[in-house]
Amino acid sequence: MQGGMMHRPLRIIDILTHAAEVTGDQGIVSARVEGDLHRQGYPETLARVAQLAHVLEALGVGQGDRIGTLAWNGHRHFELYYGVSGIGAVCHTINPRLSHEQLVYIIRHAGDRLLFLDLTFVPLVEALLPDLPRDLRFVILTDRAHMPETGINALCYEDLLAGQPTQYPWPDLPEDSASGLCYTSGTTGHPKGALYSHRSTVLHAMQVPLSQTSSFRAGGRVMPVVPLFHVNAWGLPYTAPLTGMTLVMPGPDLDGSSLFRLMDRERVFSAWGVPTVWAGLLAEIEAQGRIPQGFGDLVVGGSAAPRVMIEAYEARGVNVAQAWGMTEMSPIGSHGVLPPALDTAPEAERIAAKCCAGHRVFGVEFKIVDEAGHRLPHDGETTGELYVRGNTVIAGYFDNPEASAAAMDADGWFGTGDVASVGPDARLIIRDRSKDLVKSGGEWISSIDLENAALSHPAIHACAVIAVPHPRWDERPVLLAVAAGEAQPALDDLRAHMAPHFAEWQLPDDLLWVEDLPLTATGKVSKLTLRERFRDYTHPDLRGAEA
Amino acid sequence: MQGGMMHRPLRIIDILTHAAEVTGDQGIVSARVEGDLHRQGYPETLARVAQLAHVLEALGVGQGDRIGTLAWNGHRHFELYYGVSGIGAVCHTINPRLSHEQLVYIIRHAGDRLLFLDLTFVPLVEALLPDLPRDLRFVILTDRAHMPETGINALCYEDLLAGQPTQYPWPDLPEDSASGLCYTSGTTGHPKGALYSHRSTVLHAMQVPLSQTSSFRAGGRVMPVVPLFHVNAWGLPYTAPLTGMTLVMPGPDLDGSSLFRLMDRERVFSAWGVPTVWAGLLAEIEAQGRIPQGFGDLVVGGSAAPRVMIEAYEARGVNVAQAWGMTEMSPIGSHGVLPPALDTAPEAERIAAKCCAGHRVFGVEFKIVDEAGHRLPHDGETTGELYVRGNTVIAGYFDNPEASAAAMDADGWFGTGDVASVGPDARLIIRDRSKDLVKSGGEWISSIDLENAALSHPAIHACAVIAVPHPRWDERPVLLAVAAGEAQPALDDLRAHMAPHFAEWQLPDDLLWVEDLPLTATGKVSKLTLRERFRDYTHPDLRGAEA
Repeated sequence: MQGGMMHRPLRIIDILTHAAEVTGDQGIVSARVEGDLHRQGYPETLARVAQLAHVLEALGVGQGDRIGTLAWNGHRHFELYYGVSGIGAVCHTINPRLSHEQLVYIIRHAGDRLLFLDLTFVPLVEALLPDLPRDLRFVILTDRAHMPETGINALCYEDLLAGQPTQYPWPDLPEDSASGLCYTSGTTGHPKGALYSHRSTVLHAMQVPLSQTSSFRAGGRVMPVVPLFHVNAWGLPYTAPLTGMTLVMPGPDLDGSSLFRLMDRERVFSAWGVPTVWAGLLAEIEAQGRIPQGFGDLVVGGSAAPRVMIEAYEARGVNVAQAWGMTEMSPIGSHGVLPPALDTAPEAERIAAKCCAGHRVFGVEFKIVDEAGHRLPHDGETTGELYVRGNTVIAGYFDNPEASAAAMDADGWFGTGDVASVGPDARLIIRDRSKDLVKSGGEWISSIDLENAALSHPAIHACAVIAVPHPRWDERPVLLAVAAGEAQPALDDLRAHMAPHFAEWQLPDDLLWVEDLPLTATGKVSKLTLRERFRDYTHPDLRGAEA
Repeated sequence: MQGGMMHRPLRIIDILTHAAEVTGDQGIVSARVEGDLHRQGYPETLARVAQLAHVLEALGVGQGDRIGTLAWNGHRHFELYYGVSGIGAVCHTINPRLSHEQLVYIIRHAGDRLLFLDLTFVPLVEALLPDLPRDLRFVILTDRAHMPETGINALCYEDLLAGQPTQYPWPDLPEDSASGLCYTSGTTGHPKGALYSHRSTVLHAMQVPLSQTSSFRAGGRVMPVVPLFHVNAWGLPYTAPLTGMTLVMPGPDLDGSSLFRLMDRERVFSAWGVPTVWAGLLAEIEAQGRIPQGFGDLVVGGSAAPRVMIEAYEARGVNVAQAWGMTEMSPIGSHGVLPPALDTAPEAERIAAKCCAGHRVFGVEFKIVDEAGHRLPHDGETTGELYVRGNTVIAGYFDNPEASAAAMDADGWFGTGDVASVGPDARLIIRDRSKDLVKSGGEWISSIDLENAALSHPAIHACAVIAVPHPRWDERPVLLAVAAGEAQPALDDLRAHMAPHFAEWQLPDDLLWVEDLPLTATGKVSKLTLRERFRDYTHPDLRGAEA
């Protein structure tokens, strides 16, 4: 029997409308590429989003059309999130750190009709231009005074908005309508697109603050360092207005010193980003001998936060929570807010709990399976490949049946490619990316666990473990490390430091000091690049044979 | 274009599954009708809910079947909420305070197949029995040892559950499936049923904690004094497990002294109920000279909280927030958490803001209209009839086309029957129930405003304003008051006390001291009964003519 309730579509624009009405004194602070610090309340933002909607309509954008963006975190990028989806078009955020070939591929694959870009990316687009479709049109996200000399035949964003009506009759789109598109940076093959819907986006925005409770408080300020050009900045452009928070947008300067200055001036309470960014901020905090004023909450995602980093922030009174997710999951699937049972636990136990990926958010389900696809128990010990299900998870990739078929199992769950354990309390422990595990003598070694242990050695600034081929053991772990200072301890010293946490056969067989580690377009260490770089590396056991 | 995301049905059972996994150390504390204080974690509760599902299946309950409940707030009632809806049947909560005729009407109108009842209500059901359908079956919510001698051919709840499997394969119901049914107590005509769905219930559970933020914190304890037999106890059986809180269920004893004792012992942080209950608790607090330990948050709804009550609790460090809603709205439509802009406002301004019904929750829309149905501005001044829209609002009444047609406007909005203003910040100010307004000389007088002003007089314990007929002015306000002590001041004293807040013509024309005020089945002052009781009352202006 059907219930007797109204059925209103879940719509993204309603988040902003609510914020503009109920928490109209909150809004967006943007460090803009023009160099200024811009402030704009949610009511003004809603009015500008309405103007943008009229502009899009005038430019002939229709429902389902894809609109590309190449932009930093700022209010104009935020306006595109709402204006484009509000009229029923699809906001396609593009990661500018991708290669020329990848950028051309995804703009063509998405079929973008318009491309909005920050001033920063004018040279990038000039370089791409010969390979882009002829009918693609460009809008530069700036005002008339800052319009550059360029061969791109581009419109000016502020010129377009000026004089447009500040109200728009937002259509009642079906809630499953596409609203956003983001391509995974893809370590193999072409990038693949996740096509978000109004329903998935609104439910994600509601689910996350219900779980990641320590970060959200009306009237507080939250800073997404995680980029709006990648996986919706972990949903903050939606969760912040939904919970009545002000967004502090850092623009292009993401070094520790710039972030510290902005956070300090703007009293940022909660900051979200990848570990590499927080390593930079931590160095600045140590240099200054204090944390930015008002800072109290750090959310780390993208890759696992090293224990030493968690300890360093916690020791300075900053609550650290990891979050785990994927582009294909909108992205957040688990959160690291500690359960009430740990409220009175000893500090060491609390830190240990913070080193895992946390508990599933309401609305996301986990299962782990063996190689035959059979479910494994959620006992916190058994390890298997992690599959996920929920309204915020893709049912397949955009216009890519082959990749979709490979990603989904027969029951419609999405395979994450992560190897994990799940506790009876739905706590997720990511053991590794399946392709990053080291398979040694039929047993698996977690490269993440080795990296964490190595990072706790004071001589190591950054590190990565890769699997190298071995005739007897199949694969063996090798540690690549960036030194923190002059000291470069020997392999045996490192092994002794790590030994308490591992069986002897799990420890790395070699240690190579490197200048730096290659990063992916989303700021993670690129194991793919490392594996290629060390393709000709020979395991110590084989060197005698060669000599 | 359709998005590429999974579409999983929003299901009520998933709230409990999540709580059992992620906050398994939380649960339900119940003051039971058997006299004991019972404790049960969410994991055990989920297991018992699965057992209940097997029982229902064995009793032949199918999808869409209505299952009645006559019960106080306790864990078994909670189990029925989840078990009945989990298998796709409809949990029909029945208000035991309704009249014999009304109870018979709604049990028959709902077509209940089973009726679960607390021991308390055995005599009530014995009295109803001759008028109930022959094939209605009964289950008494107790164990074998407490089964009463009764003419009802009833099953024993704990006997039924014993030995059933503790897991159940919950079906993937379409999210619009009916899940719950509640009849409004109805001041005119027959009671009318609101038929909730899984979608409306889950969205309501997500919406409320995002707005009513001061009340929800994982590991905290929340006490619904608002009954589970009426409008889902304002959603607490869903919002509490969703946010990882423990429910403290007060059972049948709702006097100030019993509530104080339970709250004090169980460290209740947040308590929810109608003003009459909090008046009782306040008297006990004043008698004891302290608040219950751990108490910090009070949510008042059902009818407007008098300003003096808000001030009294706030003065003792208890944060007070009003909530406004209706059975037809699941029920919460607005919440009284102050916006961040008022964080630093003077106390008087903050209290004043707390005296209105607060801001709309995300997902609920308001409009006010004139008598022709035209929209009126949201300027905080203009007054009109309030209409609401959203996924948590009924689209019509259960099996009642006439009442449905009368309640909905041409655009599908639901008419609340309240007269209200809406601020530009979506703040709702309920002026009155349309039928409770006093229409004097073509102008409206708010009975709520008069009652609030009169209540601030120390001689008045409780009061109500009713409209009485007047040949010249159409209607005039008359004040009915219950004295706080021996003193019964004269009308002119009261008018002088109230005069600063009103035009002279708005003040009551008469004052009648009464022993008590009649309450509706949901604990509100029954204006209907008062109007009947004073049907033969003559306005002072007419008494000379009669003499």
